[in-house]
This record gives sequence, C-alpha cells and structure tokens, in this order.
Amino acid sequence: MKQELGVCYYPEHWPEDMWAKDAADMVAAGIRWVRIGEFAWSRMEAVPGQVTLEWLDRAIGTLGAAGLKVVLGTPTATPPRWMVDKHPDMLAVDENGAPRKFGSRRHYCFSHQGYRDECARITQIVAERYGKNPHVVAWQTDNEYGCHDTVISYSETAKMAFQSWCRDRYETVEALNEAWGNIFWSMDYASFEQIELPNLTVTDPNPAHVLAFRRFSSDQVVAFNKVQTEILKAHTDAPLIHNYMGRILEFDHFDVGEDLDIASWDSYPIGFLSDRLEASDEHKARFLRQGDPDMQAFHHDLYRAVGKGRWWVMEQQPGPVNWAPYNPAPLPGMVALWALEAFAHGAEVVSYFRWRQAPFAQEQMHAGLQAPDGREAPGMDEARAVADVLDMLKEQDTQQADVALVYDYASDWAWKTQPQGAGFDYFRLVFAAYRGLRRAGLSVDFVSTNCRAFSGYKAVFAPGVATLDPTLVSAISEAGALAVLGPRAGAITDEFMIPPNGRPGVSNLDVRVDLIESLPPHAGMDVSGGGKVEHWHERLSGAAEVFLKTQDGAPVLMGQNDRWYLGSFPDEALWDRVVSMACEQAGVVMAPMQDGVRRRRFGDYDFVVNYNSFSASVQGHRVPACGVLVFEGGAPVVACDLSSG
Amino acid sequence: MKQELGVCYYPEHWPEDMWAKDAADMVAAGIRWVRIGEFAWSRMEAVPGQVTLEWLDRAIGTLGAAGLKVVLGTPTATPPRWMVDKHPDMLAVDENGAPRKFGSRRHYCFSHQGYRDECARITQIVAERYGKNPHVVAWQTDNEYGCHDTVISYSETAKMAFQSWCRDRYETVEALNEAWGNIFWSMDYASFEQIELPNLTVTDPNPAHVLAFRRFSSDQVVAFNKVQTEILKAHTDAPLIHNYMGRILEFDHFDVGEDLDIASWDSYPIGFLSDRLEASDEHKARFLRQGDPDMQAFHHDLYRAVGKGRWWVMEQQPGPVNWAPYNPAPLPGMVALWALEAFAHGAEVVSYFRWRQAPFAQEQMHAGLQAPDGREAPGMDEARAVADVLDMLKEQDTQQADVALVYDYASDWAWKTQPQGAGFDYFRLVFAAYRGLRRAGLSVDFVSTNCRAFSGYKAVFAPGVATLDPTLVSAISEAGALAVLGPRAGAITDEFMIPPNGRPGVSNLDVRVDLIESLPPHAGMDVSGGGKVEHWHERLSGAAEVFLKTQDGAPVLMGQNDRWYLGSFPDEALWDRVVSMACEQAGVVMAPMQDGVRRRRFGDYDFVVNYNSFSASVQGHRVPACGVLVFEGGAPVVACDLSSG
Amino acid sequence: MKQELGVCYYPEHWPEDMWAKDAADMVAAGIRWVRIGEFAWSRMEAVPGQVTLEWLDRAIGTLGAAGLKVVLGTPTATPPRWMVDKHPDMLAVDENGAPRKFGSRRHYCFSHQGYRDECARITQIVAERYGKNPHVVAWQTDNEYGCHDTVISYSETAKMAFQSWCRDRYETVEALNEAWGNIFWSMDYASFEQIELPNLTVTDPNPAHVLAFRRFSSDQVVAFNKVQTEILKAHTDAPLIHNYMGRILEFDHFDVGEDLDIASWDSYPIGFLSDRLEASDEHKARFLRQGDPDMQAFHHDLYRAVGKGRWWVMEQQPGPVNWAPYNPAPLPGMVALWALEAFAHGAEVVSYFRWRQAPFAQEQMHAGLQAPDGREAPGMDEARAVADVLDMLKEQDTQQADVALVYDYASDWAWKTQPQGAGFDYFRLVFAAYRGLRRAGLSVDFVSTNCRAFSGYKAVFAPGVATLDPTLVSAISEAGALAVLGPRAGAITDEFMIPPNGRPGVSNLDVRVDLIESLPPHAGMDVSGGGKVEHWHERLSGAAEVFLKTQDGAPVLMGQNDRWYLGSFPDEALWDRVVSMACEQAGVVMAPMQDGVRRRRFGDYDFVVNYNSFSASVQGHRVPACGVLVFEGGAPVVACDLSSG
Ligand SMILES: [Zn+2]
Ligand SMILES: [Zn+2]
Ligand SMILES: [Zn+2]
Repeated sequence: MKQELGVCYYPEHWPEDMWAKDAADMVAAGIRWVRIGEFAWSRMEAVPGQVTLEWLDRAIGTLGAAGLKVVLGTPTATPPRWMVDKHPDMLAVDENGAPRKFGSRRHYCFSHQGYRDECARITQIVAERYGKNPHVVAWQTDNEYGCHDTVISYSETAKMAFQSWCRDRYETVEALNEAWGNIFWSMDYASFEQIELPNLTVTDPNPAHVLAFRRFSSDQVVAFNKVQTEILKAHTDAPLIHNYMGRILEFDHFDVGEDLDIASWDSYPIGFLSDRLEASDEHKARFLRQGDPDMQAFHHDLYRAVGKGRWWVMEQQPGPVNWAPYNPAPLPGMVALWALEAFAHGAEVVSYFRWRQAPFAQEQMHAGLQAPDGREAPGMDEARAVADVLDMLKEQDTQQADVALVYDYASDWAWKTQPQGAGFDYFRLVFAAYRGLRRAGLSVDFVSTNCRAFSGYKAVFAPGVATLDPTLVSAISEAGALAVLGPRAGAITDEFMIPPNGRPGVSNLDVRVDLIESLPPHAGMDVSGGGKVEHWHERLSGAAEVFLKTQDGAPVLMGQNDRWYLGSFPDEALWDRVVSMACEQAGVVMAPMQDGVRRRRFGDYDFVVNYNSFSASVQGHRVPACGVLVFEGGAPVVACDLSSG
Repeated sequence: MKQELGVCYYPEHWPEDMWAKDAADMVAAGIRWVRIGEFAWSRMEAVPGQVTLEWLDRAIGTLGAAGLKVVLGTPTATPPRWMVDKHPDMLAVDENGAPRKFGSRRHYCFSHQGYRDECARITQIVAERYGKNPHVVAWQTDNEYGCHDTVISYSETAKMAFQSWCRDRYETVEALNEAWGNIFWSMDYASFEQIELPNLTVTDPNPAHVLAFRRFSSDQVVAFNKVQTEILKAHTDAPLIHNYMGRILEFDHFDVGEDLDIASWDSYPIGFLSDRLEASDEHKARFLRQGDPDMQAFHHDLYRAVGKGRWWVMEQQPGPVNWAPYNPAPLPGMVALWALEAFAHGAEVVSYFRWRQAPFAQEQMHAGLQAPDGREAPGMDEARAVADVLDMLKEQDTQQADVALVYDYASDWAWKTQPQGAGFDYFRLVFAAYRGLRRAGLSVDFVSTNCRAFSGYKAVFAPGVATLDPTLVSAISEAGALAVLGPRAGAITDEFMIPPNGRPGVSNLDVRVDLIESLPPHAGMDVSGGGKVEHWHERLSGAAEVFLKTQDGAPVLMGQNDRWYLGSFPDEALWDRVVSMACEQAGVVMAPMQDGVRRRRFGDYDFVVNYNSFSASVQGHRVPACGVLVFEGGAPVVACDLSSG
Repeated sequence: MKQELGVCYYPEHWPEDMWAKDAADMVAAGIRWVRIGEFAWSRMEAVPGQVTLEWLDRAIGTLGAAGLKVVLGTPTATPPRWMVDKHPDMLAVDENGAPRKFGSRRHYCFSHQGYRDECARITQIVAERYGKNPHVVAWQTDNEYGCHDTVISYSETAKMAFQSWCRDRYETVEALNEAWGNIFWSMDYASFEQIELPNLTVTDPNPAHVLAFRRFSSDQVVAFNKVQTEILKAHTDAPLIHNYMGRILEFDHFDVGEDLDIASWDSYPIGFLSDRLEASDEHKARFLRQGDPDMQAFHHDLYRAVGKGRWWVMEQQPGPVNWAPYNPAPLPGMVALWALEAFAHGAEVVSYFRWRQAPFAQEQMHAGLQAPDGREAPGMDEARAVADVLDMLKEQDTQQADVALVYDYASDWAWKTQPQGAGFDYFRLVFAAYRGLRRAGLSVDFVSTNCRAFSGYKAVFAPGVATLDPTLVSAISEAGALAVLGPRAGAITDEFMIPPNGRPGVSNLDVRVDLIESLPPHAGMDVSGGGKVEHWHERLSGAAEVFLKTQDGAPVLMGQNDRWYLGSFPDEALWDRVVSMACEQAGVVMAPMQDGVRRRRFGDYDFVVNYNSFSASVQGHRVPACGVLVFEGGAPVVACDLSSG
C-alpha cells in the first residue's frame, strides 16, 4: 500500500496569484494530496442559482498541474446566508428550544428535506463538473458530521421526521406503546402525531423514547450523507470519503461508512487530550504537548474498521490550535510522530490541516504548515521529515490483529440515556479496555456488532455492548476466539428493556447479574491480588468459574470455556490483569510497554512511538523523546528524531 | 397502635394472570397493605370521557381477596397525552420561560383551573366507584407534590392566578406597593394586571415580590389538593393521605396536611444522602450504602407533625435506585433497619417501593422486592425480617418528646430568596440543629409556627424562623419551656422588611442584632471553649447575659431567663455545646450517642439503630452493624441483625 | 483642590418629616454632598405625562438649606412599569434570546430609540426645573452603566441598530465581508439586512463580527448618555458626572467620559474581592474584610484618567453589602481607609452609599451609615474620622506620575472574543501589571490608546493592547519614555486580523512572535533567575536583545533601546523583575512595599495605607492595622487609626 502526505488548502482564501507557488511548495515539502472546497459554497454560488465555478476550475488545474492529487469536498457544511432566508426552518434547534443560528458552520438540521434537496443540487453540479476531472482523485462529503454537537436537533422538522420514522419502525402506535413500556407513567400515545421529542420533559423521559430518537438522529445523518454519495457515484469512480472527528458517538459511523469507500478522521491530539478525555491531572500534565498516547491509535484502528480497511487522517494537527480550553504547542517531533503513527496503523494518507494559517476569522489562531505571512511554521520541517521516512520504508499492508474490540455506537446512546452512575460512560469504558490492550503491546482491530467474521482472532473484547445478539457471541466461539464480555454487556433489549431472560443472557455461560451498583469517585472496591473496581459493579452469581473477586468475595470476572464475563469497571491495574489473563487463555503473546511508549505491527515492521518528553529504551534500543523507531525483524531500521527542535 | 408493612404495586404493568400469585406472595412475606393506581390514568381513561375501570375492580378484588388492604391513589400526577391536547396551556413553565413538556410525569401547572377540573372529574369517578369498597382502606392524592421542582411555574396561567391572589391579599395596588417597598427602584405598579412573575429580571427582583409569589405557589398546591380531598371526603370514610418527599420545601406541608388524615413520605436514604444533603466527603463515604443517620429520622419526626400524629412511609427504598448521581446498594440489614427506625418514630405503615422491579421505562434500574423476572431481590428477606420483629413487639404509641423543633416552610422561601451568604440555607440550619439534638440521644418533636400548645416541652428550638410572632414565644414561656431562638430568627416581617423594632425583636430578651456577616467556607470564627461559627454571624448587643462568645469576644449565644438567642451558625462541636447548655438549663436528660448510632424512645421501648458498617456497643450491649437493638426497661429485648447478608 | 465627603440619599424612601433631621445629621457628620434622585422616576412621573416634582423641590430645598450640595441624578436607570407597556420592545434580550424583564433595574436596551426619547423628555424636564437651582451643584446621568451585564443586548432593536451601524462603518457589504474575512466559512452577506447578532451560533461566530458588535454596543452607551448630557449642558453649568462600576469593561469609559466633566465610580472593596477578582484562596482569606489592596487604587487611577483629572467616588461601601456571594463586615478602620485612599489618589468627593439602610426591597441587607431605625451604624464614626483627617490636611493637587499604564477597553472585547487560553483575560493582565508597579511603591497614571502626550513619563506599560497604532509607540519614544509592550500587544488589526507585517509589528524593535501557546494552570515555565511564565507564552525571535528567558532558553523579554517587548504572562515574581528592570532602565526610583501596604504620592504628601489586619512598619514608623499614615517630607504628619474598633 502506497502511503503519502496531504494537506488542506483553501484557494478561495488567497489571491489567485499565490496558488501556483503554494502548489509548488507543497510538492517540494513532500506533499502529494490536497483537499479543497469543503467550505466554499458562498464562492461557488454567491447568489441562489448562479453557480460560478471557473475559479475552482483554475484552482484544481493549478494544483493538478503541480502534480498534486485533489480531494474535492462538497460544501454542504457551510450553506450560505441566503439558504437560511430560503429555508428558515432548516436550522437545528437545541435542547432548550433555541434555534442554532447562522454565523459559523454546520447550521442545519439533518432532517430538513428542503436543505437535503439543496445539497443534492450543489453536489450534482460539482459532481457533473469534476466527476471525471483527472486531478480530482477523491471526494469528501460535507465536513465533520456531528462536530459542535450537531447530530441531535429538536426542531419541528425533526419532530415530524421522527414521527414518520416511528411509523416506519413500529407500524402501529399500540406497538410503539408496548415497545417503549409507555404504560409506566400513563405515557401512552393515541397516534404518531402525538409523539414529541424527548427534551424539556419535567423529569427523565422514557429511555426507550430517547433511544429511538437517538437511533432516528443517527439514521438522519446516514440518509443525509447518502443523498450525496448516490449522486457522486453516478458521476465518478474516485473514492468517496468523509472526515469524521474524535470521540463523536452521536451517529453510527459504521452505517455512514457503508456508503463510502474510505474513512478519514481529523486528528488533534493536544486539543483532544484537553477537551474530551477523562484522565488524571498528572497524566494531562505529562502529555500536555504530546496528546494522549492511545487516543490517536484508538481512532486510527476504529476508522480502519469504519473504512473497511481503507482510511486516512484527513486533518492532522500541525501546531497549536485555537479551539481547546488551552492550546499549547506540540513538542518538537510530535507533528512527525503523529503522522508516522497513523501510517503504522495503516493510513493511506495523512493530510495536515492546514497549508497556511489564515489571518482572519474563527481559526486565525490555528497553526498551519506556514504562518499567515507565508514563512514556514515549525510543522513544515516535521512534515518533510515524515516524507523522508516514508521514502525509506518499503510499502506494507495492514494485517489482522490477534485481538478484536467490539465498538457499538448504539451502546453509547443507551448509556448516555441512562448512565445509572455519573462515572459510567461507554467511550470511557472502551477506551480503558483499549489502553489495557495497548499497554500489553498488542495491535488491536475494531469490529462492529454486525461482524460475524472472527476467523483469525484469538480474543474478542466486548465491554459495554448494550444489546448482545446471540449470534455475535456464537460467531466468536465458532472462530475459536475467547469472548470477554462486559461489564454492562447484554444489559438491555434493543427497545431498552431488561432482557426477559436476565443479564447478560449469554448461552453456555452460567453467569447472572443479580444487582447493579454505581459508585462515586474514591469508592472503588479492592480486588484480591491487585487492582480495583471503579464506577460500576455488578453482583454476579452462577455456576461459571470465578476468576477474579473483590476482597469482600464478590465475583468480578467469571467464565466458562471460551466465554468470560467481566461484571465491573476495572481501574488500570485491574485491566492489566484481565488482559493478561485473557491473553494467556487465548494464546496471545504480550509485550508490556512502559508508560507513553506504544508499538504497532505494520506488515514487516514494528513501529515504536515514544510520547514521552524523554527517550525510552525498547529491546535495548533508544527511542528518542517524541520520536519513532521502526524495527524490522527485531532490529531498528529507521528512526525519526526531531526532539532537539 | 398497630404497625404493619405495605408495598407499592402496579397491576397495570403486569399480565392479569400474575395478580393473584403476587397478592399471595405479598401476604406470605408479611405485607398487609398495597398501594395502587396513582399512575394509571391512561389505563383508566385511554380516550377522553371513556372511563374503563373494570380492570381496576378486578385488581382491587384480587388483592383484597388475598387479605390485603388497598391504598388507592388518584392518578393526577400523570395526566394522559390527550389532556395536553385538550389544555395546551396546562403545562408548567420553567424560570427561563420554557414549557415543561409531556413525556414523563408531573407535567402540569398547579394554577390551571381546567386541569383542576379534570382532576375533580376523575377523582369523583373513582371516589364514587371505590369510596365504599371494603378493600379500599385508604386513599392517596396525586403523588409527591413538588418532586422534580414542580411547585413553581412561570406560566401565563400562573401569572393571572398570582395577580388574582395579590388582589385578594392586598386589596389595592397601593397597599401592595407599600407592602413590598416598590418605591425602592421605581418598581410601583399602577394595577394588579401589571404584575409579572419574578423571573428573568435584570438583577434580583424585589424579595417581597418573590416571597409573595412563593406563598402563592404554596397556596396553589394546597388548593389543588383540596379539590380532591373535598370530593373524597364526600364519598369515603377511609383516611386520606399524600406521599410527600424528602427535603422538599417549596410548599407548606402543614397547610396541605390540614386537609388530610395521615401524612406519608417516600424515603430513599441512599439517594438522598447523595443528591440532597450537605456533608463532608468523609461522611458521605462512610454512609454511602446506609444513608445519613439523621435524614430519615428528621423526616419521620417532621411528617408525624404534618400528619397531626398519624404518618406512614409510603415508599421505602428496597435496594439500589435509579435516580441519584450514584446508586450503590444498601448494606445487608439497612432495608430492614430503615423500616424498623420508621416504626420506632411511630409510623403506622412502612410500604416498600415497589413489589417487582419494572423491566421497562424510566425506573427499570430501580430495585423492587422482586427482580423483573419474579425472583426475590435482596430486599425481600429483609422485609420478612421486619415483619418478624413487628410480631415480637408489643403495640406502642408515640409519646411527646422533651424537646420541640420549630419548622417553617415560609422561612425557607424567605432565605432562598435572600440567602445573603451562599452558605446559608434554612434546611441545612434546621438539620444541623436536629443532628445536634440527636447526637445528644434525644427524641424530638416538630412543630409549626402555628403551634401554641407547648405544654410538656422543656425546650423549644427555633433556628432560622424568619418571622417571629410574639405569641409564639410567649406560648413557649407560658408552657415553662426554654426558647432557643436563632440564628436569623425574627429577622423580617411577613412582607419581607426588617422589623421596625429591630432584630430579633423578642420581648423580655434584651438582645439586638447590630450587623450581620455572611462568611465563605474556611472563614469560620473560633468560639471560646470550643466549636466554631460558620456561614453566618450576627453582631449582638444588649443587656442579656452572654453565654458564648468568639475568641475575639463577639457574643454568640445570649439569653435572659427562658429566652435565649443564638446569633451564629454553629459547627457540630458548637451545636453540641449549645444543646448541652440548653438541656442543662431546661432539665433535659441527654444520652450522648456515638457517630452513626441513634436512639428513639417509642412507648416502652428504646430503639437503638446502628448506621455503621461495624457493630457498636450501647450500654454494654452489642448493636450489630446495620442493625437494630430494642431495649425495654434498659434491657435488650429484640435484635435485628442481618449484617452477614 | 478641595476634598469633601458626600452621601447617597433617597428622600422618596422616607417620610418627609425626617428629611430636615437627616440633613442636619449629615452636616454634623462632616458630609458636604448628597446625591439624590437617580431611582425616583416612578415618583416623578407615576402616570405617563403627569410629572410631579414638588416633593423633589422640597427635598432639594431642605437639603440645600442645611448646607448640603446636591448631586441630582437622572432617573433613567429605573423606568417605571408603564414605560414597558408603552414600549414593549425596549427590554434588552439575553444571549439565549430571553427578554430581561421589568422588576428590578436597568431593564432597557441601549439601542431603543423610543426609550432614548423618553429619557430625553424626563431629562429635559428635570434640567429645566433644576438647571439653575443653586443647591444642585452637580448632575449624575443614569446609574452604573453596564452593571448587571446590561451593555450587550441581543434584541431585535439592537439588531436593526447594529445593521445600521455596520452600514455607517463599512458602507458596502462587500467591504464588510472583506473586513471580517467572511469567506472563511461561506459567511458572506449579500446585504446589511442579512446580518444577525452573533449569539446562538452553532460554534464560535466570526471574531471580527463579535468585535464589531462589541464596538457597536459600546457606542450605543455613549450615544445614550450623550442624549442626556446635551440636554443638561443646555440648562446648567454644573458639572456632569456618571457613576461607573468596578471591572466593567463592556463599554469604553473614555468615550463616555468625553461628554462628561467628572468621572466617578462606585467602590465596594469587599464585594469586589469576592465576586470579580482572580486571586489565591490565601489572598482572598487574608483580605476578606478589607478588600484587595490594589483594586480600589487601580480604579481610582483609571477614573482619574477617564475624568480627565477630575473624579469622585460616588458610592463608597460603608459596611457589609448584600450582593456578593459572601458579605462579611469591614474590619474597623477600613471604611475610613478606603475614603482616605481615594483622597490620596485625588478624589474630589467620596460619597458613602447610603445614608440610612433601607428596611425594604432588594438592598435591605446593604449597610448604610445609619441602621434602618436611625441608629448609627459602625461606618458613621469612620466617616467622621475621615472628615477630621481632611480638616488636618492642606489642600493638594495630583501631580503626574513617573509611570503610565495604557488601558484599552477594545482590547478586552477582543480577548474576551478570542481568549485562546482560558487563563487569559485582559483585565487580569493589566491588573497584574498594576500590582507589580504598586509593589514597587510607584504612583501610576492611566492613559487611553488615544493618548499621545507622554511628556513627563519615564516609562509606559502597554500589556495586552490588541491593536498598536505606530503613532502611539512613537509618541512614547518622542517623550523619552521607555515603552514596555506586551504580552499580546499589537496582536491584531482593528478588524481582528493578524497584522500583515506580523506581531507585534513595532518599528525599530526587531522582535517577532513566531508561535503562541496558552497554558493550563500549573503548567507554568520557570524563568532563569526567578519567576515564572503563566497562562500565555509567545515564542519570540529577532535581533533585539534578550533580557529574560525561560530555563529552556525561550526569550521572555526582549528590547531595543527604548522599546521593550514582553512575550509572556508573568507571575508576581516575574512582574517584580520586569518592573525593576524597566525602572532601572528608565530611571524611576522604586520603594518596594510589603504585602498589603501601599503608598501614593499626593501633592506634598505620601499616603501610606495598610490593608493588613496587623500594623506595619514603614520608614521606621508604625502604620496601624487597617490604618493610614500620611507623610510630609519624610515625616509622619497625620494618622488614622481606628483598628481598635
Ligand atoms: Zn476540522
Ligand atoms: Zn416515588
Ligand atoms: Zn450602586
């Protein structure tokens, strides 16, 4: 697989006479791909119906002539001001009932048919014009679905669409009442028209109602995206891509991914550590200028699954950003490390965001590879270093890992709806599991709950999977893999009820959950032999063997043959024990990593990345601070060391 | 007095063929009462005007046939969806102006006449049908008035009703302007129609305006409830009950209680410790799975007063609940201890909530005595143990305590309106006083500010009573009891002005408040001899004797004969000193308790409850962890010890 | 310059027969000025159009007859209830879209022309009636512009006015699009009518849009005030004053000040320490009952500049207030110290707020010089002590300081719009600089960015000045003063873009900002030789000399000749070093002060104030706790010592 660098570029922001030099400079820096167009609707169609794309023709031509491959974005994340006059009800509405107004981006409700039609129209226009353009080698739909909390809208438009969605799903309102248990507080509906959205209720709405609305909201994103992919597929053979974000779970990325060829994501390690990760103050201080050592890898592996093997980093942080609570600069080496780590996880392209820092508007404090005046920013040299490393490596392909991790968006919707304990969060749980696997030096593959092809895996982890289809578990067994389920797996039906045959309800695994406790911070329970239970503890019974129990004797991990059930939320030490026991059982070879150092197998290579601000020693070899060491056959073959700045 | 167990049951949630076995199982578990019906309006009247109660006839019949006494609830806390179509303006409105929508419960504004009429109609229907039914032995009106912050509504409906209420109270708008001091910032009204509700003002609204609105809001609850009680009284001789909640002060429970025969409350010790009590982290950790050792007793004693001597626990936590930030499980023994403690305080019935955990809707994670699949949950055995203990005890009656505590809802409205210091809260203050009395081993009676019958009391505490009627203080004196007033007692008139003759303005007590300070955390002032002043400090002067002063010499407790004034908010150690001094003065015999252990005199018995997770020693006898030891004549006669699980 | 005491009085709150005695008592207490009228509109015009001012005639007459000079306020901060019926759209709207209702004060949108006309009308009426009244010796417009966050309104009225303001500023919408960089996210407008206010956007609005709206909002305050000053100037020769608040930066006080003769402010030291200052817990505890030792001086010096040399304290805290989260009482001596400190900074009048505590409405817990019942409150004696000290001192005039500090409201609007780091705040930065200068014992003058007359200054500090006009810097140089610029100075153009020639873009200073980092708490960087960088760090390069650098070698302070640039936010120790280096360079003589002790040169006197609760020693002389010692020629001449109470 060929692996290359890219960059994000906005020709509409710069005088046309700068384009050719910019293109030449990109190529000189080792860049091969350039993404453009995704925010340019007001330049494409300043007046409704008057489409002016000549400037874009020239931009694509100039970039292409320099040897760059263009990724062209549909501009639907930023409808122009006139669109809101034309469709005043297209705006999303927040949970308090306030419209989310024009003036930034993503100002639309996914359910609005009028706006979908407008998106179809503009997509059709650009697809017709550039679908066969030799320089346009890939397409991006919209931009960062779900960013700024934009999946869920409580608009009238959404309400009507939700009623219609309910009609499709339940057919009769009696069936819906039954499915949701509306009898509980006399919440029964007499018609679909009576159904409102589950915001502003006096106390908690029915969780089944909320889960249905969350499913509907996700489906709207899928449908919105599909409008564009269907048009694009009719006009081009180039792969279709969307650029997802980090830790956005409001829509099912696997579902959206079904209609795309490649998954990509926008990786901002320092901002994400600051604004969207649970971690101790010490951890956040230690990795302040590097980002969390597992956050990027997690998403790389996730999006590799979402992209059915094909994935990119569409936007790579190149320096300080503007949007986190605090925005420190990356340590020297990190801008290169992040890209190389992505390549180690199989990225086809890593594309820095952005070429040149814009001196105006919202992101003027967001670094680029160039400063606003065109001088090189610190990231530029690191991009060049990455290109050099790529040159030194042979092409590789990703191979299957020994371990798979089930990832399920609907489980997040369920547990957000009813966390039961303020410390319980689905992503937090899965991420804790992933960290445990990575501390063990393992490469990890993500799978969705639709996966039934587990052949080749030795162990499959499924923490927090709300609804367990029996065929999922049996498919794991049939593949000969160990299934490590829980905590909170098989805990509800897909209509948010406690399963009639109890929890977790897994056949050939005599474990049942008798009672559930959620725990405040500092109320963890010690586990015999080391580690702790935090946040969540299920009281387990049954005939299965007890592998781990609390010091008070409560079972924590039980199992029978190839089916294990973990009833509690482990702390780091306990995750290490669970992973270690599972690896031993499943015949997976571990290679424990020191803090901040991680490795990833990629074809013939082992990439070792060091997120620490000091050098590390791995197998007797020095891995530079914020650096990368690539091993082949146990011997280091390439290093990336920029830590001296 | 006969004391029995009950349970809450929802026949509409379960297939009819389960009812008879459920009833038999209840009786077998020692249960004698069953509450039903309070959320079943949509089943009683699925279509407006088409009332179907045959199912309820059969449910009552089945339960009654098994020997159970039925408490029937009016279903007015959960109006069906069609009601909101019929009366779109019946919804309450929050302080930001947003309607509080259908989709959970308590979705009504107390001021809405149309909805009151609907409630009268359905109450009339069930009263006519079951008023003489031999199995329906008590009635409950609505459910948990004020739960989910539902007393106060800023709807247009409420505004009109408030204007009318003002017209009744003040007669002329000039009188209102004068009463409220509206001249202050040119806030005068020219007519009652100009009066708006005191939300969304630019800065604080006039506290007199707010207090009037709070009085009005409380009065609306009273009037709403009275609509039902008047109808019920015309059709039945069975006692009328409402189930209040813990730490809800938005309406005057004494006023509502006037129209009822029995007070009851819903006791959730673990949830309440977590979500509605000020306490140190250490305290909350220590009693995480037991609840606060004084919170239940406080409400037992309060509702005994609200019920004019007759009171129940209508809902008793039987295991983990679903609604607190964290929901741990009770330690073994606590589910029994809570019930026995209620009986020690004179409860006639303690009714577990609920019989069987519902597998659907909002409370699916709320434990019952049975799990969703009908297996017994841990609470069931503890209920049986309680029934056994009741069998072993002779019937007793509550006798008057030595000490009374004045409790006044309007004082909370006043101090919420103008806390003056972020650490000052009326409930917090009264609860701190109550804790001090209980640490001294005392039984306590609550009285309202309308009480004038103090005969038999040796000491009466009145902390934080905003407006002191002189006849209240003189009635205490006439009864020969010591009055311990303050802090912040007699601090305003009932129209929220500083009293013309100063604070506290108590005759025969030469103390005056010259200046008031509120204090941030950690800015407490040490008191000579031990203890601290926190949150609130009044600078006192006058000829009365100074009993306690700060190390800087500022008086803290002053008094003359049988009238004492406490000018500061004491910490625990200082409360202990104040209680001890008052007991000595009043001739009250103390029995200091260790932390987590409490006692209550009940007839011939002394109940000792141990909230600790380890056993305690009282008078040389072991009180089990989470257990109860009942003494008679100084000797233990019955123990409840379930701590081994 | 004559310096005198005043007081705020509300004749409309008290029976007319109390006025004469009140006036006599004021005079007896040493008070010479009395402010009245500013909240009395409902008494002046209870019914629209029916103006009744006879009571005010009598009040002014009574006060004047007693020898008091009256400051008469226009009553426009408290429009009566009928005004809102007449102009329902005059209410401001908050950022969530909710109207800010009648019921307190300041309930108007500055942009509402109808309300401006009403203000003109009532001002005309009182100006005509009292413009030549011999007792009315000064006028106050409105009251505390901006208090309760009232500058910014998102009303429809404001939107229309903003569109008009944009039309005036930019002339064409194309120019506006270009100026704001609206192309960035297709945010271009096709007409001015399309421009909305920058609230409720999906993510951050364009900072240029916000800055324009903030400028507009400030301009509306200026225009609103000017309506009144133009009318008043036509009718009176008495000086015009407005009473500003502490740390209100939402409008440009210098601009408002252009239309007034005297600046005044309302000084509440204890409340301000609690509710609007960043400080450590230790600092807040140490000065809990004194206020921050620099906060008052800061505003005194600021408003001296806003008033072009003439300034007052219009409201001086006399005891505990009612509006801060916690409201402790001043230590004995502080009520006097605050007034004397103001006089040391050149106040013409210090006016206590209020004469008598009102027993009703919002401020009933706000102390006065008298208690509600007319007894003297603790502040009264301290006011008398101040009058005594004034009698002992010779009249003086303020002379120019050695050091000037640039203060710029628009910089706060810019950095609030785009803080880039949660720890960065403009006021916080300027205040930190001011504190550093005061710790060095220096007197400080404030200047606006319009100042070009720097003659006489030895050093000028300009921290955080967003846009640096080159003529400002050259004017400093021409005056022979050292310019200490930064951090974050010259960082944007006045249309919120990164300056084309880079940051800070100062000629004859070869420094450039290559990259900017914002830092979370506890992530400070040590500076070689002592002190730390916090919150904000710019990576500097260039040929200028490096005076300070971090231990990692990053430049922190660079300079060339008389132009220095500070690239980081210093902690206290580092500010001390920067100040000390600048003083040495500029030939300014320092006199380092101990914590809590400050001095101020005033004419021939040096005032030393001691904010500590214990005495201090200055030049071998004891300065009492919470006391003042006035030096002349190095020898103490007058002391104010009330610390014993
Ligand atoms: Zn992005
Ligand atoms: Zn309940
Ligand atoms: Zn004021």
